[in-house]
Amino acid sequence: MIDFRPIFLVTGVLLSTLGLVMLIPAAVDASAGNPDWQVFTVASGVTLFIGVALALTSRTGGAALNVRQAFVMTTLVWVALTAFAALPFKFSQLDMSYTDAFFEAMSGITTTGSTVVAGLDAAPPGLLLWRALLQWLGGIGIIVMAIAILPMLRVGGFQLFRMESSDPSEKALPRAAQVAVWISFIYVGLTVIWAGALWLAGMSGFDAVAHAMTTIATGGYSTRDGSIGYFDSATVDVVITLGMVVGSLPFVLYLGALQGRPLALFRDSQVQWFLVVLGLVIVVVAGFLWIGNGIDPLRALRFGAFNVVSIMTGTGYATDGYDQWGAFAVPLFFFIMFIGGCAGSTTCGIKIFRFQVLYASARAQFAHLVQPHGVFVPYYNRRPIPEDVIASVLSFFFVFGMTFTAIAVALAFLGLDFLTAVSAAGSAISNVGPGLGPVVGPDGNYASLPDGAKWVLSAGMLLGRLELFTVMVLFTRSFWRA
Amino acid sequence: MIDFRPIFLVTGVLLSTLGLVMLIPAAVDASAGNPDWQVFTVASGVTLFIGVALALTSRTGGAALNVRQAFVMTTLVWVALTAFAALPFKFSQLDMSYTDAFFEAMSGITTTGSTVVAGLDAAPPGLLLWRALLQWLGGIGIIVMAIAILPMLRVGGFQLFRMESSDPSEKALPRAAQVAVWISFIYVGLTVIWAGALWLAGMSGFDAVAHAMTTIATGGYSTRDGSIGYFDSATVDVVITLGMVVGSLPFVLYLGALQGRPLALFRDSQVQWFLVVLGLVIVVVAGFLWIGNGIDPLRALRFGAFNVVSIMTGTGYATDGYDQWGAFAVPLFFFIMFIGGCAGSTTCGIKIFRFQVLYASARAQFAHLVQPHGVFVPYYNRRPIPEDVIASVLSFFFVFGMTFTAIAVALAFLGLDFLTAVSAAGSAISNVGPGLGPVVGPDGNYASLPDGAKWVLSAGMLLGRLELFTVMVLFTRSFWRA
Repeated sequence: MIDFRPIFLVTGVLLSTLGLVMLIPAAVDASAGNPDWQVFTVASGVTLFIGVALALTSRTGGAALNVRQAFVMTTLVWVALTAFAALPFKFSQLDMSYTDAFFEAMSGITTTGSTVVAGLDAAPPGLLLWRALLQWLGGIGIIVMAIAILPMLRVGGFQLFRMESSDPSEKALPRAAQVAVWISFIYVGLTVIWAGALWLAGMSGFDAVAHAMTTIATGGYSTRDGSIGYFDSATVDVVITLGMVVGSLPFVLYLGALQGRPLALFRDSQVQWFLVVLGLVIVVVAGFLWIGNGIDPLRALRFGAFNVVSIMTGTGYATDGYDQWGAFAVPLFFFIMFIGGCAGSTTCGIKIFRFQVLYASARAQFAHLVQPHGVFVPYYNRRPIPEDVIASVLSFFFVFGMTFTAIAVALAFLGLDFLTAVSAAGSAISNVGPGLGPVVGPDGNYASLPDGAKWVLSAGMLLGRLELFTVMVLFTRSFWRA
Repeated sequence: MIDFRPIFLVTGVLLSTLGLVMLIPAAVDASAGNPDWQVFTVASGVTLFIGVALALTSRTGGAALNVRQAFVMTTLVWVALTAFAALPFKFSQLDMSYTDAFFEAMSGITTTGSTVVAGLDAAPPGLLLWRALLQWLGGIGIIVMAIAILPMLRVGGFQLFRMESSDPSEKALPRAAQVAVWISFIYVGLTVIWAGALWLAGMSGFDAVAHAMTTIATGGYSTRDGSIGYFDSATVDVVITLGMVVGSLPFVLYLGALQGRPLALFRDSQVQWFLVVLGLVIVVVAGFLWIGNGIDPLRALRFGAFNVVSIMTGTGYATDGYDQWGAFAVPLFFFIMFIGGCAGSTTCGIKIFRFQVLYASARAQFAHLVQPHGVFVPYYNRRPIPEDVIASVLSFFFVFGMTFTAIAVALAFLGLDFLTAVSAAGSAISNVGPGLGPVVGPDGNYASLPDGAKWVLSAGMLLGRLELFTVMVLFTRSFWRA
């Protein structure tokens, strides 16, 4: 049997934190004279009460978590936080159903960015801040998880990063907890820098802070119905484009840079691949916009870069209806959704390091075909990839494909058309935000989907965010029998 | 350096055979008084001349092929046969461009079934027979290849079947060549049986023979613009549905059945999985047609079974515009395109045995997550799967996904809309035939696509038919350097 006490303890502590954070939008709404401050205050009270009660009744001798407890904890924490984070949406003046509120909270906390709220321009400041805060907390949450928990769980090839950080030659900090604290400081620092830059670029202080949070978190919630297109500013576009890239790189390398190894960032093969792939796609898209659509080259580059970065990193901002750019754009944006950024960043999707492992493994296969008796070892970041990592990553790719298929078919059974179903499924599992087409595309909104589809998509976001296996393993017989 | 003489010898012999086969439609057209008999006769002469010349000038001491020669030969044979098989299309009264003729020939010989010919109902009998013959030859060609060549090339997990047939406990026939001859007899026998059944079901003798050939080959070329829907007969539908299933099972097991082991067919886990998956999808589709669309249950089962079998096995016949059945049908038919049938059959796609290996491997991964120090060996057909087969299959799945993506994006760059691009790409790589939507769907035709798209799709069909790696390895540096 699994001892649930340490799991409930962690859940309780994190719920209490969430309750305290709710007081920030409460204060903002109160100072703006908006009655929703009461909703936030009550939601805060409820969340705090449950959180503290859970923590107090689950105190243990403080034993370390075992692997199975860590699996249960990870999924439970994410679901519990979402369930309570939905409360302000449910009871605010937006008057959402609980389905909508849960969807919006899940989309926030997983840094997806799909929204069911129409009329952001007129929404109260507390709610807008709450959406940004959820993504911001989800962003740092996933980075900490990628450093402290996923490598231990050996999920989808993340053991690759345990290997690295436990290698003494890397002079890594001794303990994951210490790394997590330092990285949180970096995360706050980057957010402050980007808030300042956006403010200098012309945004209001409120918009600047909200967008800085959702940029670094590669989340994509905006305070405006027109997303970043509302600001119609080249400076804003450039600042946010850079911010999304910064949010997509491994944060542990920023720590390395601060510790005197700034070049390590660019010597990392994951970073190199990410930037090269991103650059290639931007050049292709900007080229099509320039030559095919007759947009002047600088503007083509600005719009191309912004929207490609936004979708490939899974942020989900838009400055233009890129699915109206022509036939070439729709499948291209559909497929780059799945790429994602680097492991240890705020991005989701398949992630660059997996493509590297898959590519290296396929190369070894080709070499093996020609020389059946040769031994070909795939490399990652100039080191041989252990067998179990390869098997882990390859299986991840298969399970990812099957999960995407299952979500898309489920959405179609619920009545969604092909483009909406497949793009919403891809957008959810990769935590992107917008899909493609008139319903869920960059100009659309998820509000009109049936409730069933919203629950399916919420599940898809959770699965994608927690690297599939973390959640799915809970549904295997061997997990509970072991 | 590679010695090309044995490669040219085989190519020459097969081209000569193709040239001789061209005399069959020539005779049919001559007896029907159609002037195209001259086209077939001239094309036959040209093909025979080149074939014989190639064979005679490339005679060798008869040494066995090495692995690299086998790779070059496989791709070269398929391309050369297609290039000459296109001649009758090019010079017939249909007056096709060479692009269209090559596309039609490639679609035939790979048993895909995508067509650029409109007006089949009025087409001369020689051409209709030529299309059926190409699929029929392609079908037996791929079965022989799967038995004799692919296991030796260790492509995409096919070494699994070398292991089996070389296992003495299976009492397999000593030599692949002998097996190939026996299986060819079975192939002819099944075609004769199905031709008889279709004739009894009411088809004309000509239609019965042509459809028997394209049914057992899971090819899908019809002699009618309305495909099988033209005959509007429940008996025809049932006979063809069964024929497509028969064409999707491992032919080597039919040989086993004739040798006194009839139950081996149903004890094979690949066959079991295939029938279960097929049955489940049919039940879901028929259920939707019955309950959702209000079609009476027997008719729902008939239409559901026919079209699901047709698409999942990659045959590509249609009795109805299944992409008009409602939102649920489009993604479902899109995804089942990729499944395919069993290894060693005439079907293409990812194939059932790969899903079994992928599933077994993913299961082992899940078990490994819970017990990091446990050893979990995936099984296929009650035997442990060797490590290199798993790596091979997993890489196949990745390369398949990337190739599909590349084809779809290329088609979009050539101006095709999303649904047309992704469904045509999937249809080509899985050798299905029709895609989805108004352009390439079951009611459509590939004729209107730009020439570039037809070449991309032809390449996709070839890649899919030859299990990707067989062709791609020729484009790696290590192949030519080794």
